[in-house]
Amino acid sequence: MRWQSGKLLHSAIRTFTSAAVSQTSSKLRSIRYGRVTLLVSGGVALYTSCNGIVSAARKSTIYDSFMAQPITDVSTLEKNPNDMKTKMELLIMKIQNDFCRALENEENGAKFLVDRWSRHNPDEGGGITCVLQDGKTFEKAGVNITVMRAPLSKPLQASMRARGKDLPDDKKFTFFAAGISSVIHPRNAHVPTIHFNYRYFEVQDEEGNNKHWWFGGGTDLTPYYLEEEDVRHFHSTLKGACDRHNPDYYPKYKKWCDYYFFVKHRGESRGVGGIFFDDLEASDPNDIFGFVKDCAESVIPSYVPLVKKHKNDEVSPAERDWQLLRRGRYVEFNLVYDRGTKFGFATPNARIESILMSLPLTARWEYMHKPEPGSREAKITEVLKNPKDWV
Amino acid sequence: MRWQSGKLLHSAIRTFTSAAVSQTSSKLRSIRYGRVTLLVSGGVALYTSCNGIVSAARKSTIYDSFMAQPITDVSTLEKNPNDMKTKMELLIMKIQNDFCRALENEENGAKFLVDRWSRHNPDEGGGITCVLQDGKTFEKAGVNITVMRAPLSKPLQASMRARGKDLPDDKKFTFFAAGISSVIHPRNAHVPTIHFNYRYFEVQDEEGNNKHWWFGGGTDLTPYYLEEEDVRHFHSTLKGACDRHNPDYYPKYKKWCDYYFFVKHRGESRGVGGIFFDDLEASDPNDIFGFVKDCAESVIPSYVPLVKKHKNDEVSPAERDWQLLRRGRYVEFNLVYDRGTKFGFATPNARIESILMSLPLTARWEYMHKPEPGSREAKITEVLKNPKDWV
Repeated sequence: MRWQSGKLLHSAIRTFTSAAVSQTSSKLRSIRYGRVTLLVSGGVALYTSCNGIVSAARKSTIYDSFMAQPITDVSTLEKNPNDMKTKMELLIMKIQNDFCRALENEENGAKFLVDRWSRHNPDEGGGITCVLQDGKTFEKAGVNITVMRAPLSKPLQASMRARGKDLPDDKKFTFFAAGISSVIHPRNAHVPTIHFNYRYFEVQDEEGNNKHWWFGGGTDLTPYYLEEEDVRHFHSTLKGACDRHNPDYYPKYKKWCDYYFFVKHRGESRGVGGIFFDDLEASDPNDIFGFVKDCAESVIPSYVPLVKKHKNDEVSPAERDWQLLRRGRYVEFNLVYDRGTKFGFATPNARIESILMSLPLTARWEYMHKPEPGSREAKITEVLKNPKDWV
Repeated sequence: MRWQSGKLLHSAIRTFTSAAVSQTSSKLRSIRYGRVTLLVSGGVALYTSCNGIVSAARKSTIYDSFMAQPITDVSTLEKNPNDMKTKMELLIMKIQNDFCRALENEENGAKFLVDRWSRHNPDEGGGITCVLQDGKTFEKAGVNITVMRAPLSKPLQASMRARGKDLPDDKKFTFFAAGISSVIHPRNAHVPTIHFNYRYFEVQDEEGNNKHWWFGGGTDLTPYYLEEEDVRHFHSTLKGACDRHNPDYYPKYKKWCDYYFFVKHRGESRGVGGIFFDDLEASDPNDIFGFVKDCAESVIPSYVPLVKKHKNDEVSPAERDWQLLRRGRYVEFNLVYDRGTKFGFATPNARIESILMSLPLTARWEYMHKPEPGSREAKITEVLKNPKDWV
């Protein structure tokens, strides 16, 4: 079971439909966990939020294979199966589920806590934050999806205009965003940290016309020790996903990734890169959707083999210290430069815990720490200072 | 002894004049530690940097009571005793020494490492970073002074202009800054973290005329557990320093402090405040200098009694965890909002290790951590969310 008491709506439906429900007759059964009440009945599951309002009631469907119910009302999704908003929401729900299950397989029974939340104004959407903390393999693993529709704030409008979008200052717009964002901090210093994020944006004018739409995203790896073979495996997998769509994608987005994850004040990259892109448009959004889907689906094959390979490696106290110091650098990037974090901080009533779920469980800062020349710590530092090509 | 190998010039002069030098005759004696060569002779100490250039030579004087030699050439200081630049540099050197010694007194022999550094262009000045790491009482204590003269960068000029200073964009200026900045992270969760910073700025036009000058600074406390008596002692001491100069200062700067150290994305203050001020001018800079001196001299009496009182308190593992979680919040403030950090990041060739010396040795982020209602953790959280008056 996974949920948490508090003001938020938590979903344990998936577990219920496969466990509790199978034991119940067609009679309605009410089960209370903290402030969450679950009503289960045969193949039908209903759940109520803490304020007692029934917010969903539906038949057992493909949605049960997700970590929680979609953010958008199921009837809206089913009425608009070809709308890119629907397609993207269903994609990120599936990616979230598949990735969480793949990571749970590397644990000794530890499961993701599933936190389904709404924005202050529930009409603006919400998200599903899945966190596995203090596991045997993962010290902190966060996989978050957000689906929101809200008025476009003036600063956000200005920043989009600065990136070339036609969004005159004297007009009002609303935006839709659906995205998945994940950072995995493993316990073993020989297993790298991974981050990925795939998102779809739409901007509508006051008449509801779609003015702009675009995709963004990327996957990047942050090892604490350099295993060239692993880094090549990671990059080749991403390159494979890119090459199936356009041979120019990988070199272009690999370079963009190195540029984006550069920590200016340290003069070094956050990790060994991967791919990164933003503002991706085309005549047919389905073309890009296919590319984004392939990228998102390449996360598991690019990363999970590295977890399996190293999760039981020996780690010395000095290696653990080095891992924590590098996690300090990760915190520096995320708080000082990361666009997603800045976007979150700039969003009124943003859910800060879902934004900062990317921060590691523990991090360390030592004054003037310098790796010994010739050490394995010096070797990875050298690569961070001079990003190289891996495939 | 305290120094560190590396490219930097480290000063161990003070220790030498009191130890090694007393054993030497008038003959010059050369002692090498790592890349630092110390030349000592009777009451005269000379020191060379790693590149072998003798950068100072002088008689034993009051400067020996500092943690290292002043940044400005001693002859320049002695020629201009009434220049505010001289007065401020000597004040911060003395405050640095007194505070470091007071903290060392609370240790079991652990001493500050003294790191005297120059900017890439040594004509632009440098600083002295004193760090005590992994001590019995202090997990990480940093006390840094900086004295620099450099061309005013356009972004910095614009930000000063935005604060009301007459610095037209089409003219060039240089600036002088002398300041002390310190953050002390104790090991015991019942000893609060303290931060203080006192600084003096001058801006000159191309003809070398002083266009603007001002002082800024403040002292603030971040306890992990609330001991009202301690917080009242801390605030009363600062109020005493303020009241000796103007009864309006304390209420005004107390409020400014609460405003400045508010972590917007968390909706809470970094700590229980203190005082904070900036852009302080007057017809006679000496009036403000006297106030700043009093504030800086009140750091020891405001803080060290709290260290003595709690440094041996029992700490449970849960209390240690809470301390580390709150240190995570400290990191968030320093990386996301702190003006000093932003100023550092915006300064070309800034010495990043001296800026980020303020970060704790270890910090922790747990997803959705909420103190138990009624707990001591909940009590301090309540005060952080609703800053109150203490004296």
